[in-house]
Amino acid sequence: MPATLDEPDTRPARSARPLTLAIVGATGAVGDEFLKVLDGRGFPVGDLRLLASARSAGKRLTYGDEEIEVQELTRDSFAGVDLALFSAGGGISKEFAPHAVEAGAVVVDNSSAFRMTQGVPLVIPEVNPDAIAEAGIVIGGRAGIIANPNCSTIIALVAVTPLHRATGSGGVRRMVVSTYQAASGGGAAAMRELEDQTRDVLGGREPTRRIFPETYAFNLFSHNTDIGPDGYNTEETKMLRETAKIWGVPVGSDPGQIGITATCVRVPVMRAHAESINLTFHGQLSEEDARSILAEAPGVEVIDDRPGNRFPTPLLATHRDAVYVGRIRRDLSQPVGRGLDLFVCGDQVRKGAALNAVQIAELLV
Amino acid sequence: MPATLDEPDTRPARSARPLTLAIVGATGAVGDEFLKVLDGRGFPVGDLRLLASARSAGKRLTYGDEEIEVQELTRDSFAGVDLALFSAGGGISKEFAPHAVEAGAVVVDNSSAFRMTQGVPLVIPEVNPDAIAEAGIVIGGRAGIIANPNCSTIIALVAVTPLHRATGSGGVRRMVVSTYQAASGGGAAAMRELEDQTRDVLGGREPTRRIFPETYAFNLFSHNTDIGPDGYNTEETKMLRETAKIWGVPVGSDPGQIGITATCVRVPVMRAHAESINLTFHGQLSEEDARSILAEAPGVEVIDDRPGNRFPTPLLATHRDAVYVGRIRRDLSQPVGRGLDLFVCGDQVRKGAALNAVQIAELLV
Repeated sequence: MPATLDEPDTRPARSARPLTLAIVGATGAVGDEFLKVLDGRGFPVGDLRLLASARSAGKRLTYGDEEIEVQELTRDSFAGVDLALFSAGGGISKEFAPHAVEAGAVVVDNSSAFRMTQGVPLVIPEVNPDAIAEAGIVIGGRAGIIANPNCSTIIALVAVTPLHRATGSGGVRRMVVSTYQAASGGGAAAMRELEDQTRDVLGGREPTRRIFPETYAFNLFSHNTDIGPDGYNTEETKMLRETAKIWGVPVGSDPGQIGITATCVRVPVMRAHAESINLTFHGQLSEEDARSILAEAPGVEVIDDRPGNRFPTPLLATHRDAVYVGRIRRDLSQPVGRGLDLFVCGDQVRKGAALNAVQIAELLV
Repeated sequence: MPATLDEPDTRPARSARPLTLAIVGATGAVGDEFLKVLDGRGFPVGDLRLLASARSAGKRLTYGDEEIEVQELTRDSFAGVDLALFSAGGGISKEFAPHAVEAGAVVVDNSSAFRMTQGVPLVIPEVNPDAIAEAGIVIGGRAGIIANPNCSTIIALVAVTPLHRATGSGGVRRMVVSTYQAASGGGAAAMRELEDQTRDVLGGREPTRRIFPETYAFNLFSHNTDIGPDGYNTEETKMLRETAKIWGVPVGSDPGQIGITATCVRVPVMRAHAESINLTFHGQLSEEDARSILAEAPGVEVIDDRPGNRFPTPLLATHRDAVYVGRIRRDLSQPVGRGLDLFVCGDQVRKGAALNAVQIAELLV
């Protein structure tokens, strides 16, 4: 499966020998998307090892024209593996990623297990691709773990980073984010819960809560992660900390820090997140300049049709690679040029997880 | 139907003679709620005139134990009417409210037709009840129009005003709002559209768009109102302008003005709105003080159970009077005491429309 000619220029020019790949969590929603994205982008896959829990071993999954049997994940699963894509939760990553690295593999981990670990690059290819080279991680050379950021962080920063780095903007001084997060962030079972509950409500039956503490059908609720002593839930704290690591700046309210606050909310939508983002700049960035910058930004598509009232929606972003940006406008509560409002949507399973990880893998090939 | 003993203290102590009431738009979602709220609160209703379009004339609606026939709305519908509650859209209000006033009635108008008209008080009873007396409007005395603010404005300001007025806070300097708005804002037909489309999607059928330009089932979209030259849609502009009028302060980015920005989004929820609100104060307001103030605030219920991860949801607020407030926390992007994040929910049909109008009427009795 040779690399195709229409690959992004960001890839280093190397001979792409087919790699031995392992996918950990192959039977999950993100695992399924890994297979689609790898195939769709012509990733140089040689041997493909699909790994999951004992319960899923023996299932057969389709990759391109092939059927591949799922194997049970063990400590010995990684012999000969060049690259392992993990998406089976933090506990599995913590236990098994070190074994993969020990076996010589480069791990791209979609869980939160290693994101804040020093020496582990946390990478959005459109934002900080150089972090991998800086860590010295090379396939077939120096093994190691590369972390995929949280979905909400990826989707926000693909849109906001070009503005943060724009000449004149002086960088983002403050960012206020409110999210509209899809069921898929809780995995395939969460998507089923939304569907089942909705059927129940429409059928006049009491909906059953299994995964989420609140009724999900025709409702929304604060993100169901633990709340810290500062009142922020884990999803919100991730956005603050991960942005600090990816941008390489401290986050906080002191001068010289970037102020970020987030309110993370789950809405009854299947698999794409939306985020309402309010920005304050140190310098000046006009709405027109922001629009031009976003039109050229990698991984971004601008949909901002005011007369037609067409803007990004989760449904539009579903199964698409891009982060869609619209409602680009001067924030009237701040002096001209000083603040902007944006509304962004991105597929949580794809750019928020599988695609971003495969793009990281492409940087390694 | 005498006033009951457990009425709020805000009512002036008068003999509550039964009033002749007209409800314009009686067959709509808000009209239906008017009947429930008037009955439930023991409003002194004498004669009750239910008015709607010719198409709905002859329908029979239930008020308490009575069945009342709907009459066609005409210019002559208001003879002898003390109080007319309008909720049939801006066009109907513009055409017929002046006739009601001419006939000597006090009009409480739920549309946007007169909200920004000078001399028309724009009232949230918990926030600015005195605006009615200042306008000199009295039932059986000086007729006139009182406007009900837009639902999103009411729900935000019931929660935020007590903090704006708190000693030490110095008032709100800046407010960043992202809304999660229910179908009911588009009326009963919009709620049916959400239900019908959801049935279609679950049944594997293509959903039909009638009212909203975007698919609504398992999706969300920027509020479907016209976009002005500044990029704000009408729903957002209402929040800015109405807040300015209700609080009696100019809104803008200059010193001495209050900065407000809003991003209004429709989510697939039936009838309660949610809003993520970020506040910056001129002075200082601690999280603890904000919590105490909100616990005592009229019309507010605090639900902020961090260990149990229970916060306000639209479903919880549905068919309830209160505006629910939770996720009360220091905004980490601002110095201690300088900023707060809140998440609020309120029933759009009730406190966002019918209840607020009836509370206004109670101030007049």
